[in-house]
Amino acid sequence: MMRDWLSAQALARPDGAALIIGAATLTYRALHERTAAFAARLAAAGVERGTVVGVLLSNRLEAALAVHAAPRLGVTLALFNTRLTPVELDGQVRAAECRVLVCERDTLPTALAIPSAPRVLCVDPVNDQRLTPINRLSGDSAAYRESDIDLGAPFAIIFTSGTTGMPRGAVLTYGAFFASAMASAYRIGVLPHDRWLCALPIYHVGGLSILLRSCLYGTAVDLWQRFDAPAIMERLRSAPVTLLSLVPTMLYRLLEQPGAAPPPYLRLVLLGGAAAPPDLLERALRAGWPIATTYGLTEAASQVATALPEEVRRKPGSVGRPLIFSRVRVVDEQGRDQPPGVYGDILVQSPTLMRGYLGAAPLDADAWFPTGDIGYLDADGDLWVVQRRSDLIISGGENIYPAEVEQVLRQHPAVADVAVVGVPSVEWGQQVGAAIVLRDPTVSVEEILAFSRTRLARYKQPRLVRVVDELPRTASGKVLRAAVVELLQIAGCK
Amino acid sequence: MMRDWLSAQALARPDGAALIIGAATLTYRALHERTAAFAARLAAAGVERGTVVGVLLSNRLEAALAVHAAPRLGVTLALFNTRLTPVELDGQVRAAECRVLVCERDTLPTALAIPSAPRVLCVDPVNDQRLTPINRLSGDSAAYRESDIDLGAPFAIIFTSGTTGMPRGAVLTYGAFFASAMASAYRIGVLPHDRWLCALPIYHVGGLSILLRSCLYGTAVDLWQRFDAPAIMERLRSAPVTLLSLVPTMLYRLLEQPGAAPPPYLRLVLLGGAAAPPDLLERALRAGWPIATTYGLTEAASQVATALPEEVRRKPGSVGRPLIFSRVRVVDEQGRDQPPGVYGDILVQSPTLMRGYLGAAPLDADAWFPTGDIGYLDADGDLWVVQRRSDLIISGGENIYPAEVEQVLRQHPAVADVAVVGVPSVEWGQQVGAAIVLRDPTVSVEEILAFSRTRLARYKQPRLVRVVDELPRTASGKVLRAAVVELLQIAGCK
Repeated sequence: MMRDWLSAQALARPDGAALIIGAATLTYRALHERTAAFAARLAAAGVERGTVVGVLLSNRLEAALAVHAAPRLGVTLALFNTRLTPVELDGQVRAAECRVLVCERDTLPTALAIPSAPRVLCVDPVNDQRLTPINRLSGDSAAYRESDIDLGAPFAIIFTSGTTGMPRGAVLTYGAFFASAMASAYRIGVLPHDRWLCALPIYHVGGLSILLRSCLYGTAVDLWQRFDAPAIMERLRSAPVTLLSLVPTMLYRLLEQPGAAPPPYLRLVLLGGAAAPPDLLERALRAGWPIATTYGLTEAASQVATALPEEVRRKPGSVGRPLIFSRVRVVDEQGRDQPPGVYGDILVQSPTLMRGYLGAAPLDADAWFPTGDIGYLDADGDLWVVQRRSDLIISGGENIYPAEVEQVLRQHPAVADVAVVGVPSVEWGQQVGAAIVLRDPTVSVEEILAFSRTRLARYKQPRLVRVVDELPRTASGKVLRAAVVELLQIAGCK
Repeated sequence: MMRDWLSAQALARPDGAALIIGAATLTYRALHERTAAFAARLAAAGVERGTVVGVLLSNRLEAALAVHAAPRLGVTLALFNTRLTPVELDGQVRAAECRVLVCERDTLPTALAIPSAPRVLCVDPVNDQRLTPINRLSGDSAAYRESDIDLGAPFAIIFTSGTTGMPRGAVLTYGAFFASAMASAYRIGVLPHDRWLCALPIYHVGGLSILLRSCLYGTAVDLWQRFDAPAIMERLRSAPVTLLSLVPTMLYRLLEQPGAAPPPYLRLVLLGGAAAPPDLLERALRAGWPIATTYGLTEAASQVATALPEEVRRKPGSVGRPLIFSRVRVVDEQGRDQPPGVYGDILVQSPTLMRGYLGAAPLDADAWFPTGDIGYLDADGDLWVVQRRSDLIISGGENIYPAEVEQVLRQHPAVADVAVVGVPSVEWGQQVGAAIVLRDPTVSVEEILAFSRTRLARYKQPRLVRVVDELPRTASGKVLRAAVVELLQIAGCK
């Protein structure tokens, strides 16, 4: 048992900057007070101890307040991707058993359209009798000014998909984030005046972990609602931002900004979420950016291995050694360790691992978690990740599971068969492509895409589509995904 | 359960510098291998799991090896001050129940003279049939290449005295040092290339904690056998030492060196062990040294509160806020919290607190430990320590308990009464002074001091002595220590 991290920091470093949003700065004391008030409002709105609270918020003050209010309310947060459709959210809301969903003006229509109809609380003032306007409530914040944290208790549920393509809720304890914060600090360092710019959504583990570790460190987070490259570049030049988490697409866009000299205060850019394209990495290094490549997992509360900038310069493409107390093995199909340099399945053992997936057996304390990713360890013990989760598509930092997109497209009566793949893209890393076999050739591609739009988040929708007579398959009937990618790279796709 | 810290770091950062002694540097991989070999030798010499191993070593390689070998051997270390006499050590060796004592050439005569006669192992090659020359043994190091650490297990016993003056063994768990390393990093920061110069003896918590936290961080320790001010100043100017722990006497001596501009790589000097004299602090600040004042306790595995350099410049003399998860209260004699600015007894609650004293009941997890120190919290919540442990004398970083010195002097048949106090000294912080009432006026002060020399470590012996007709006392018979100090400050003392 320990004191909740924010109230501990409000004692340890009350006047330190905690949260910066636009031109406003909250100190730890102020963030602590706002969190107590926010927790009291949620309680007044009927949020009960021991329940799961859904969060459908962009990167805004109330998202940070919800994160810090969780231990004080004794609830687990289910953090939902704001880009999902009501149909997609329905399954996750039900899997997490959350009966309350905190949303904002922009996510309200989606929240209200979820078939399983969780109770909706809105942090923006709106006139809608179906929901509780929590900012108009006032609870007794005195009861929420501190709380204990049991490191073994579930703090957050984040949805991610295995190779099956079915999103599963990874249940992450406080202890996982606590261990992750420590191991990250011991690898990349922490300084009392660090300021971490967070433009990764807090419903992804990369964003959420920035909020939590910065709170433990007593350092500042500069929170951005969306990735606005010119504005962020301007911020990096004018404000003492020392740390920055990016997915490759974001780095690409920053480097596209005029005069992309490395920002003056930046000591490290944590580049993760997908393998960085070699030419992007080379360009960033040539420009002198302090890039640290990282390999992380939702199931491991973020970083598992991280290469420091000097290591990236020496060995670009590697993600370095596992963080302290994390271990990585690369094994063959029989589970035997591969020799250095030989590809295999990446297994992870770490105190940062999730308790388990929702509805599945918990992991053992010393479990070797099969990541589904492919890579190898070199002779120095540095990790190289060559492919993430076999056929997973990563586009602009979002994970897209081909099986999920294929399943939706197959529901259209005119579709006989379909293969969804990631097509390389300089800006996005990958783009979603689909090869479709039509049952009814009179149906247009536009019609099929219109159908998918109501069932799939925008970022999952195919950007490149080609109608084919049949899918290229192996003798055993398995789709040849590389051949599908080639088909889609030929000009003339929709 | 977690992997032992050194073997974890040998995986996480094998090629990083771990230990620097003189011109030699050991990487984490090398330190790990040497530790396995050292553990195997100790085992071959008969050290058994579950026992207490005494350590009577200066700051040398084998001292670091012993520290890291402890978890691999499954033993608890009792770390003894190398300046103690055999008589003083006897009590501590027996209290800790250690039957084996690891010593070096210089401490060998003392070790062999301890009345309770522990088994002596020597790390230097000496020809003496009474002891085991462990460096000539060779064990099977394969069995000591890693181990688990239970954070609740006792790692070290360090002797310290309460106001009673009787040394007591503080039993510190791995968890206390683990929590201390984390909280220290989150206050003063850590960087991958940090190098911490350690000239504090490792048998004091200030030195020992540098070895342990640097191992967890994967950073380097530059270990010095003794505080050689000119050589250390030269090192600070020529090598990338970023962190330095000092007691005020050491800082005084560094500032006395010619051209005492702040060393180029130094980012922080942790100044603790005793309240820094205001003029010393002012002098260091004026010279531009990045001083962080700290308040620490053996019983809390080192730092409890630390003020960063910018805070020291703003508020010289304060030791700042407690580290995260540590709490400080200042109470009156009835245990009621004092208002800001009002002196009282300092109580500490922390995950870094010892399990308890040897032979005493363990502390509760949420215990408020009475430090015996006096201070106050100001309106900002910053701690000011005005007096350490009421009458404790701190001279050159060593704690000296008046009661212990008085007890020895009283054993001389010519001594009727005695009061031992700390007399302010610019260089030493304090010097030991004694006012003596003689029963037999024909006995000389020299004779009494010769008597004490065989029974007290050199640093505890009175430097200023005055024979008086009677001790200044309050009506209730309590010695007026301030009056004794004044008496001793008058010229003409022996």
